[in-house]
Amino acid sequence: MSRIVRTESNAILAKVVEHHGFIYTQGVVATDLAGDIATQTKNILDQIDALLELHGTDNTRLLQALIWLKSIDDRAAMNAVWSAWLPEGGAPARACVEAKLADPRYLVEIMVTACR
Amino acid sequence: MSRIVRTESNAILAKVVEHHGFIYTQGVVATDLAGDIATQTKNILDQIDALLELHGTDNTRLLQALIWLKSIDDRAAMNAVWSAWLPEGGAPARACVEAKLADPRYLVEIMVTACR
Amino acid sequence: MSRIVRTESNAILAKVVEHHGFIYTQGVVATDLAGDIATQTKNILDQIDALLELHGTDNTRLLQALIWLKSIDDRAAMNAVWSAWLPEGGAPARACVEAKLADPRYLVEIMVTACR
Repeated sequence: MSRIVRTESNAILAKVVEHHGFIYTQGVVATDLAGDIATQTKNILDQIDALLELHGTDNTRLLQALIWLKSIDDRAAMNAVWSAWLPEGGAPARACVEAKLADPRYLVEIMVTACR
Repeated sequence: MSRIVRTESNAILAKVVEHHGFIYTQGVVATDLAGDIATQTKNILDQIDALLELHGTDNTRLLQALIWLKSIDDRAAMNAVWSAWLPEGGAPARACVEAKLADPRYLVEIMVTACR
Repeated sequence: MSRIVRTESNAILAKVVEHHGFIYTQGVVATDLAGDIATQTKNILDQIDALLELHGTDNTRLLQALIWLKSIDDRAAMNAVWSAWLPEGGAPARACVEAKLADPRYLVEIMVTACR
């Protein structure tokens, strides 16, 4: 049985789970909920950077991303921040759909799968 | 080419697919649709236990979970059953959003990725 | 560090990302938006066939599928095309929920994980 490493595992979820070089993040939401879609997206991507770094990797190693927007109309504004964050030629496979999120102040939630 | 093992594969989906020690379940819904959110969640988690056992693993080896709620307002009630089910320190990376499901009686649907 | 291979990576996403024999596609939508749900589904599955072929695999090697429908009422019509496409005994683990998609003309979006 190979090892599973969990980061900040609580009663509900782990922020990151790693197994066999594959790294799964939670659906990350903004910690600062006062911001607009661009601010929330940047805040989330900063958190993802930090989570990936804890597992010895970074955003050049993204495999898959799932993105939920409170309003699909925010897609262009979210994409602007998202594409500025992505390394050249390093985009993951992605789906982005609208969904009602856990808190009405959440405008976007992003979950990624990466690898070492 | 390494082997793929499918459990209860029908014309639409397999309940579980395993490859290279990674185990993917379908989005599991309750078989007893008369129940409330707590009952449906417990029913689903019992099914997931059985599916994982068929593949030689259990809920201590969860990597990722995707949860869809018919109403995001059911989140706390679902979480109570979910967190009681999870082993100490064994939570997966998770996202939980609201979505309209295949049958109006389905209150929750849960898909997990686990490993041996 | 093992290699990541990306197909048609742009500023936002890659159509396919492969790592360690696992193959992740984007959420694929129809290129011909005039069609009904059956036509859009067939168009998407044709695209997925082509993407999998580029990575040396095919629809006998599907592990997981996520399907979003603009209207969950289109599920039966989508399933008819989906199940005709799937090889006998080769269905992936699957979840299918309703979601508002990026363009109002998109009736369905399908993301798969496969393997070599």
